[in-house]
Amino acid sequence: MTDALPAVKDALRTQAVETPSWAYGNSGTRFKVFAQPGVPRTPREKLDDAAKVHEFTGVTPTVSLHIPWDRVEDYAALAAYAGERGLKLGAINSNTFQDDDYRLGSICHPDAKVRRKALDHLLECVDIMDATGSRDLKLWFADGTNYPGQDDIRARQDRLAEALSAVYGRLGDEQRMLLEYKFFEPAFYTTDVPDWGTAYAHCLTLGQKARVVVDTGHHAPGTNIEFIVATLLRAGKLGAFDFNSRFYADDDLMAGAADPFQLFRIMCEVIRGGGFTPDTAFMLDQCHNIEAKIPAVIRSVMNVQEATAKALLVDREALAAAQRSGDVLEANAVLMDAYNTDVRPLLAEVREDQGLDPDPVAAYHRSGWARKIADERVGGQQAGWGA
Amino acid sequence: MTDALPAVKDALRTQAVETPSWAYGNSGTRFKVFAQPGVPRTPREKLDDAAKVHEFTGVTPTVSLHIPWDRVEDYAALAAYAGERGLKLGAINSNTFQDDDYRLGSICHPDAKVRRKALDHLLECVDIMDATGSRDLKLWFADGTNYPGQDDIRARQDRLAEALSAVYGRLGDEQRMLLEYKFFEPAFYTTDVPDWGTAYAHCLTLGQKARVVVDTGHHAPGTNIEFIVATLLRAGKLGAFDFNSRFYADDDLMAGAADPFQLFRIMCEVIRGGGFTPDTAFMLDQCHNIEAKIPAVIRSVMNVQEATAKALLVDREALAAAQRSGDVLEANAVLMDAYNTDVRPLLAEVREDQGLDPDPVAAYHRSGWARKIADERVGGQQAGWGA
Amino acid sequence: MTDALPAVKDALRTQAVETPSWAYGNSGTRFKVFAQPGVPRTPREKLDDAAKVHEFTGVTPTVSLHIPWDRVEDYAALAAYAGERGLKLGAINSNTFQDDDYRLGSICHPDAKVRRKALDHLLECVDIMDATGSRDLKLWFADGTNYPGQDDIRARQDRLAEALSAVYGRLGDEQRMLLEYKFFEPAFYTTDVPDWGTAYAHCLTLGQKARVVVDTGHHAPGTNIEFIVATLLRAGKLGAFDFNSRFYADDDLMAGAADPFQLFRIMCEVIRGGGFTPDTAFMLDQCHNIEAKIPAVIRSVMNVQEATAKALLVDREALAAAQRSGDVLEANAVLMDAYNTDVRPLLAEVREDQGLDPDPVAAYHRSGWARKIADERVGGQQAGWGA
Amino acid sequence: MTDALPAVKDALRTQAVETPSWAYGNSGTRFKVFAQPGVPRTPREKLDDAAKVHEFTGVTPTVSLHIPWDRVEDYAALAAYAGERGLKLGAINSNTFQDDDYRLGSICHPDAKVRRKALDHLLECVDIMDATGSRDLKLWFADGTNYPGQDDIRARQDRLAEALSAVYGRLGDEQRMLLEYKFFEPAFYTTDVPDWGTAYAHCLTLGQKARVVVDTGHHAPGTNIEFIVATLLRAGKLGAFDFNSRFYADDDLMAGAADPFQLFRIMCEVIRGGGFTPDTAFMLDQCHNIEAKIPAVIRSVMNVQEATAKALLVDREALAAAQRSGDVLEANAVLMDAYNTDVRPLLAEVREDQGLDPDPVAAYHRSGWARKIADERVGGQQAGWGA
Repeated sequence: MTDALPAVKDALRTQAVETPSWAYGNSGTRFKVFAQPGVPRTPREKLDDAAKVHEFTGVTPTVSLHIPWDRVEDYAALAAYAGERGLKLGAINSNTFQDDDYRLGSICHPDAKVRRKALDHLLECVDIMDATGSRDLKLWFADGTNYPGQDDIRARQDRLAEALSAVYGRLGDEQRMLLEYKFFEPAFYTTDVPDWGTAYAHCLTLGQKARVVVDTGHHAPGTNIEFIVATLLRAGKLGAFDFNSRFYADDDLMAGAADPFQLFRIMCEVIRGGGFTPDTAFMLDQCHNIEAKIPAVIRSVMNVQEATAKALLVDREALAAAQRSGDVLEANAVLMDAYNTDVRPLLAEVREDQGLDPDPVAAYHRSGWARKIADERVGGQQAGWGA
Repeated sequence: MTDALPAVKDALRTQAVETPSWAYGNSGTRFKVFAQPGVPRTPREKLDDAAKVHEFTGVTPTVSLHIPWDRVEDYAALAAYAGERGLKLGAINSNTFQDDDYRLGSICHPDAKVRRKALDHLLECVDIMDATGSRDLKLWFADGTNYPGQDDIRARQDRLAEALSAVYGRLGDEQRMLLEYKFFEPAFYTTDVPDWGTAYAHCLTLGQKARVVVDTGHHAPGTNIEFIVATLLRAGKLGAFDFNSRFYADDDLMAGAADPFQLFRIMCEVIRGGGFTPDTAFMLDQCHNIEAKIPAVIRSVMNVQEATAKALLVDREALAAAQRSGDVLEANAVLMDAYNTDVRPLLAEVREDQGLDPDPVAAYHRSGWARKIADERVGGQQAGWGA
Repeated sequence: MTDALPAVKDALRTQAVETPSWAYGNSGTRFKVFAQPGVPRTPREKLDDAAKVHEFTGVTPTVSLHIPWDRVEDYAALAAYAGERGLKLGAINSNTFQDDDYRLGSICHPDAKVRRKALDHLLECVDIMDATGSRDLKLWFADGTNYPGQDDIRARQDRLAEALSAVYGRLGDEQRMLLEYKFFEPAFYTTDVPDWGTAYAHCLTLGQKARVVVDTGHHAPGTNIEFIVATLLRAGKLGAFDFNSRFYADDDLMAGAADPFQLFRIMCEVIRGGGFTPDTAFMLDQCHNIEAKIPAVIRSVMNVQEATAKALLVDREALAAAQRSGDVLEANAVLMDAYNTDVRPLLAEVREDQGLDPDPVAAYHRSGWARKIADERVGGQQAGWGA
Repeated sequence: MTDALPAVKDALRTQAVETPSWAYGNSGTRFKVFAQPGVPRTPREKLDDAAKVHEFTGVTPTVSLHIPWDRVEDYAALAAYAGERGLKLGAINSNTFQDDDYRLGSICHPDAKVRRKALDHLLECVDIMDATGSRDLKLWFADGTNYPGQDDIRARQDRLAEALSAVYGRLGDEQRMLLEYKFFEPAFYTTDVPDWGTAYAHCLTLGQKARVVVDTGHHAPGTNIEFIVATLLRAGKLGAFDFNSRFYADDDLMAGAADPFQLFRIMCEVIRGGGFTPDTAFMLDQCHNIEAKIPAVIRSVMNVQEATAKALLVDREALAAAQRSGDVLEANAVLMDAYNTDVRPLLAEVREDQGLDPDPVAAYHRSGWARKIADERVGGQQAGWGA
């Protein structure tokens, strides 16, 4: 592996992970949202926190926005604010699930008026992209049904296709639509985009600018996610990742926390399939319900980096040779050899080469930022999913 | 089956299903709580709604309370209010998951002060039972951890045992402790009472007054719930059911809505195991996030009744004979013969014999109650999980 | 519903369920195959048994073959033998998983020689279709890997596509290729066609004659199968069903035995989506490991009929009205009203109208066939998965 | 961690992993058993292979037997044969699932004659233990049902309890009964010992010599196995592990291959709970269906060693401090710090200290044993699950 190290380091230096504005705000379960001191109250304060993560990790130059949670009057000004902190605004995430009108769905709702309202919101998100210079519109729909018979499964697909088509038509030449699927929740019987196959089929119909988002927490138990990644890359339809981890359902734990080996396997397929380029957006999408938010984001970013480093270290020639010869154990051993490597020293070097502290978490804690925001962000309404 | 009909009808007439006060209030997912018109604002209004359900079904004479959601100054007065409406107050449900102190757990929390606070709440619940005349204290703990290493699994069990023991010691002679288990949520790595085995082991240590609650939505995918029911009845440790249904996780859909055959099989084991007595509390515990709440409760009660009727219709002698002879297909056929029977006419008869409308849902809709509460319950704070 | 009854009866009379030759032979788990008396020893004896099922049910006019388990010298003669018994030969099922060469896969194997061998077998199956007059080639591949790294996920997709394309090119104008997917087993890490999305993507590339097979036991836990059915029908890509049922994995229990409500929901989508035509092949594919095989097939056929009858009874207008108005409970109630109907009397009438015994299982038992085959089929090698 | 290293090395030197005789023989799925060259034909040849594993790893001094697969005339002679190769005979595994009589169960069968036959087999296994000097009788029962109604769930529990009690009474003072549970397979509706709770409840009734076996592949999806380990250790009821790994069901892949982080967490609880002693039997129980068997066993042993080494490296004081202070991220970080360590150099040192090759797999390959057995073990019947 030694010969490969310079190339591996180069690759690690180019890595970019997008952090979501909402990870800095409050989140929780249906049972309780536990507030934390210092949580941002405005989109600008979220960007301040995101800038800290980028300051210490060096690999998180962009921030996803969520509309309406990050609604502001002047998006260009927000983009400029980000720019002053070394950040760019990333994907625009739509929200068609928190208005009372959306009780039975948004763009799949049986009532055309509700569908129109939801579509207008999606189109507004493209307007915002124009203002922020964002490339990606990320669409996740909570649409679905809770009871058999509640609505017509197929008619809802027709409505979905119609709305997606209208949004697609509105995209600029350099803009993309990223369609996310989810196994279940908040709908408990059918979900209108429940799996990669459904997202893929719609994206195929829409055209080149439509791509699938893989959220690592949105699958049925036991689903082989890296297989989906390989398949989507083969089809030229992988657009982005929403990284997070889970033991059960959509737990939204820190990326790499529940199954680091799975994250490694996913990154192996990304690299194998030519997906380790800016064409694939690597995003975090997770909730820090009980842990401190900023260091949890830093930790997640580091987990992604470590999985990437290990995946880059796989001896591809030895692997291919073992695969060709049908040597099951040797092929597995080649992969595991990379996984079992402790890449933390390597990543520390990469950071030091870039003038960063080798230990981003420790550096963050030393920075005093946590105390500062706890002291200063007093009063007002803390940001959260509902705000 | 004809000969058995009178006995079946008698049994159905004795059936009692407890409805939970919180099913009448608002509920939702972490994404959104959709408010509904006419939702109760006080415990008394919840009892008013529960009384309507009892009026039309005739089988829901008791109502579970949830503390603090149903906290009142004078519980004896609340019990009297219920009594005037033909109801009794049922199980007292504790809540140790909605205070900021409980971010890392309640009676399993690493900090003794938090544990003490949680224990005091549990003891207060027994005080309330004394006032309401409730037999059962129902304990569900959201306690658990989200990340490997977060806390010591075993030490948490020790803390759990200590608190349960203290509560158990406080119970009166006629009072019982019902311990509920849950696979996951809101904790996403470990849950301190995750399965029936853990609940059973604690109840065994505590003594005769401690029993296990089976919530039908609280199991790993594929778990055979009727097996657990049979096992707990064999051990004399089944205390209660929390009925609801699910396709995925703890979806809390209407009982019998997702898998009516499973509900039937559960009731078969209840009857087979001698559990169809007042010793077992048959409760609903579900959320009506998108559907009208009172008719959803009525529908759930009817689903339980239908499953019970079918289970009562099983030709036990024919079943035993087929089982003894190892005739797999015949034994299965005997069971399915009961399941495939349309028991709605039978239940309509039972209702008419009791002077009830044979169609409780239609009768409720005709009653005008929905409009009345929508008109009258204006202003104030609608009841919900957080209130 | 009364007005709809004649149409429902007409529809039920046109229903056809294909039974698989291998359901009459021995099957088991990896732990043990329990032999049964009277099991067929030859393809002709399997057809004899299938003819009995058709004699008593009236709705199983075709039989799927599995090559090489049903290999004969003269397929035209076998077709004629079937014809004399009122049967036709149905889908031809390939087998590329029981030769030692297939340890690491068949058409996805890293070695081109093994791929060629597997492809030749598939082409041979089309030759057999020419001889039997079968319309459908049903392809299920056990291909996959057991360990991360074992083989290249994407390269295997390329090999898969290449072989499928070669087979597709060989199909006659009236012939179709049905591609089956399976979540896992016998491969335990990746499966090369693991989900409907993968099967769909390949069929789309191949063309109009390629369709997806939905085996009801081949999904991840919790998967909403009727959603997939609706989606495939919408895309014109549903080719066939392999009916069976499961509580856990690919248990291959009798259709409708584990979750009759699910089977009903599936048939509802079939009818809703225009799939209740000869264009969709309704097949059984299950194992009778511990129960008597012929009556188990009869029972399964009856379960499919009952689910179909209930689905036909759904009041489509009332359902659509409730869906349009967003009345969740009423829409669900309309569906459940059909499901809760006891359709056995209706099916008994349909059978009597056709001159059949209203109770096929009882008629079979009275026929003496079970004893006859137990007496006569002595010596020789009982048919099974390996023969 | 440096100060702890000598103690860690000492602990690693004391580790013992028992290998199962059947891992050296053929295995497969219900679809196909792929034979491999050089597979043992007799129990003695299996011991020869096991001795090779011990020669190169130094930590597998005992071998589990499976009766009747390892039936010999003279067990004392077999034990002597093992002794000459530096091995001891370990747990005796019963088999009550491969006789035609066991189609509907063994000790839970409705027919007393079959139950008696099964019980006699179990008692014979204790006789064999007397002859081999084995401490542990490992009981796994395939008993269960495939269809609702097939047999009486509770009556089967009574029969189970009766048989276990009879066997328990036959145990010598130094002998133990290890009761294994399994979620499903080969039974597909109920399994008579489906979960740790059932096994625990029976062991509790039986007494001190009865302990629970945790097979890491025998749980429902998502089950937290380390929680069960912690719970059983707290109750003094953990007897043994059957290590293997899985992505889906009971895949029986190499230990540590599917989720190495899970294996680490399990070993953390073992050590935390005082279970890292000879009182807990650490066994492999897996199938090498497509990979070479002996090196697969070696690899599995090494995976267990690596997980153990990492678990031993956890800084317990730092962990406890972080847990006490409620620092979620720091507590998790302490655990992950150990997990992310590359322990292969440490284990290489431990091996070299013991005079072993630091790379057991390479040493095995250099030894020529694979070629030798392929050349010599010609003719005869290869050992497998059915022999």
